[in-house]
Amino acid sequence: MSEPQNSTASSTINSTPNSTVQFFPIKGGVCAPSGFFADGLNCGLRSGDQGDLAFVRSEKPCAVAAVFTSNRFACAHIQHARKHIDRPSCGVIINAKNANALTGEAGVQAVETVLRAVPFENPLMASTGVIGVPLPSEKIVAGLKQFDYNARESDRAAKAILTTDRWDKQIAFEVKTERGSFKIGAMAKGAGMIAPQLATMLCFVTTDAAVPKTALQAHLNACLDESFNAISVDGDMSPNDTIYLFANGESGAYDPQAFELMLGRVLHFLALEIARDGEGAKKLAAFEVKNAATKADAKKAGKMLAESLLVKTALFGEDPNWGRIASTIGAAQIECDPLALTIAIGEVVVYDRGKNCMDSAIEAKAAAVLKNDSFRIVCDLGAGSETFVSYGCDLGYEYVKINADYRT
Amino acid sequence: MSEPQNSTASSTINSTPNSTVQFFPIKGGVCAPSGFFADGLNCGLRSGDQGDLAFVRSEKPCAVAAVFTSNRFACAHIQHARKHIDRPSCGVIINAKNANALTGEAGVQAVETVLRAVPFENPLMASTGVIGVPLPSEKIVAGLKQFDYNARESDRAAKAILTTDRWDKQIAFEVKTERGSFKIGAMAKGAGMIAPQLATMLCFVTTDAAVPKTALQAHLNACLDESFNAISVDGDMSPNDTIYLFANGESGAYDPQAFELMLGRVLHFLALEIARDGEGAKKLAAFEVKNAATKADAKKAGKMLAESLLVKTALFGEDPNWGRIASTIGAAQIECDPLALTIAIGEVVVYDRGKNCMDSAIEAKAAAVLKNDSFRIVCDLGAGSETFVSYGCDLGYEYVKINADYRT
Repeated sequence: MSEPQNSTASSTINSTPNSTVQFFPIKGGVCAPSGFFADGLNCGLRSGDQGDLAFVRSEKPCAVAAVFTSNRFACAHIQHARKHIDRPSCGVIINAKNANALTGEAGVQAVETVLRAVPFENPLMASTGVIGVPLPSEKIVAGLKQFDYNARESDRAAKAILTTDRWDKQIAFEVKTERGSFKIGAMAKGAGMIAPQLATMLCFVTTDAAVPKTALQAHLNACLDESFNAISVDGDMSPNDTIYLFANGESGAYDPQAFELMLGRVLHFLALEIARDGEGAKKLAAFEVKNAATKADAKKAGKMLAESLLVKTALFGEDPNWGRIASTIGAAQIECDPLALTIAIGEVVVYDRGKNCMDSAIEAKAAAVLKNDSFRIVCDLGAGSETFVSYGCDLGYEYVKINADYRT
Repeated sequence: MSEPQNSTASSTINSTPNSTVQFFPIKGGVCAPSGFFADGLNCGLRSGDQGDLAFVRSEKPCAVAAVFTSNRFACAHIQHARKHIDRPSCGVIINAKNANALTGEAGVQAVETVLRAVPFENPLMASTGVIGVPLPSEKIVAGLKQFDYNARESDRAAKAILTTDRWDKQIAFEVKTERGSFKIGAMAKGAGMIAPQLATMLCFVTTDAAVPKTALQAHLNACLDESFNAISVDGDMSPNDTIYLFANGESGAYDPQAFELMLGRVLHFLALEIARDGEGAKKLAAFEVKNAATKADAKKAGKMLAESLLVKTALFGEDPNWGRIASTIGAAQIECDPLALTIAIGEVVVYDRGKNCMDSAIEAKAAAVLKNDSFRIVCDLGAGSETFVSYGCDLGYEYVKINADYRT
């Protein structure tokens, strides 16, 4: 599976019959688009050198689109943002180590206290970390005073927002269209509590494309199904999941199809980075459910495969145990006949419409596929023509270790 | 939490305003009721001394009730049984180590081959083990010839049906009612692939109560919600889940309310035994969701709590991390306001309607509760008056070890 790699390579795409889009990977993450700044520092929410506080700022007020968790106990920053998201905003303050979730009215007041100390217009907030602990707003306010708000330190920002992530997650493109050029950049954090219906994570996208506010939200919504809603680490859904998309219009360029295409690439890349960095994960699996009767069936089977503990532990054990894959599809309550089903691990067909294909040679080939860092598992339902690809990771000892000990 | 212990103690219950039921735990498992026989032996499906083949037989043909998995890929024994379940049957043949699932038409033929070698009337079959491997019916047929079908070796039978279980699961009661006395006995296996909507397991119940065929199925259905459908080990659902209930009528006694009451006790005890013996589990947790707006809400929240990886790993870590409990309830998409929610670990209130109650003393008390082998987590939604109790277990390193290595 090579999506993540390919998506950072430069390329030419025919976005419509009449236009050509060229795009190039560039450095700078959220600071790559014109007029955006970012930095990160440690304000004392966690010990050690790693930052725990970041900002992303635009010099001009931005149109903002956002997607939030569907968890009913949305955290304080989301309760605040829902009231203010329609105003043009110059950026966002992000903290790690404290989710400011399940903190009641005091949590929302803490957001307001923090944001009063921000020296730019209509700031938003995003928090991630432990649930249910009051936000130490005084530490954050003290930290905010130390920032140079004209810094372009996207790496420091991307590292400061991490929790149990093993690496920072950034991407940026320059995009050339017949309607002008623009840039798009992004950073994200994830790793634990990741599930479809907004994978649990924070994601920040900046662009200097001149996208109108109303179109911005539609573009974001259109890109979710095949990015963040297609990944699962552990099936949990946090109260904090947030995507913010800031468009400051500085490039003056806007090609709707090219913009949505590139936004989709950015979100798909970051979603896969998050799945790949699932807590304790060694492997990224793409579950391609083909020839389903309906798209909903394909999504349901893919989601269940990505979330099945028995499948995830088999991946960890590098065990081509197709019985668990088949059983999970059977449990999905979708239209599927075992005599029409085919399962391949990579290119290796292990179950073919009622026939177990596993002899020792096939088993060795399938096991070899699972030794890779990433691979594709293809389930052809033979029930229709709809396809969906979900992404998940293995589950091993490290997941248990991280999550049994996280608070302590 | 003391349900499992209490359910084996003798007791007197007023089943209706006009009748009294007395019941006493007795030995003998499935052989305890009059006219039932059972035994187990090793026929070579697994190496070592442990049995892998068992029978349960009644001298008189029985009315049979059954519940099967809702997995769409029902295994061969279920495909066979669905055609024959309405006939009076003298019993069942059970094998471990091979699920005979996803084995196509050849799998059903293997069941028929096995059952032709059984020297009693209209036998049924039940299989558990690895999916997708042809059933070695010749080994089973050879094993069947070695049985003494008049043996009453319920312990050997109960051990032969186990897979990754750590202990055998049996129970039996003698029940005295004003309409006569009867006995009920049962054995089960479980441990992995356990989920509500029939927890994945095999369960065999025998009774000499004179229950008519039609009433028998209704009694079984009525007892499922608060027993096997209330437990979860890993949220997976096997193609093999089966409960068979055999009633041979030898006692001549039938009190509908007393029978359903005792059947419910038997199934509840075995379901909790299975949850307690979840693969690698050290702890049995009862998730009591109280004061929900609807019964469906209480069940959904309970199921999600029992299945949440973050909750299960916190239990393993003995970490009273109520944030994960609250977040899971929020993710359940049920009617609940965080300002109405109260969470208690055992008797220790850790979150009270918007207030984090955790100081160091409370945290120590809550952590002490989680050090027990079993405990209750009470979530009062404050949204209505419906209650449901789900049961689950912790998830630790052993679960990963068992499931990464199971086939090899």
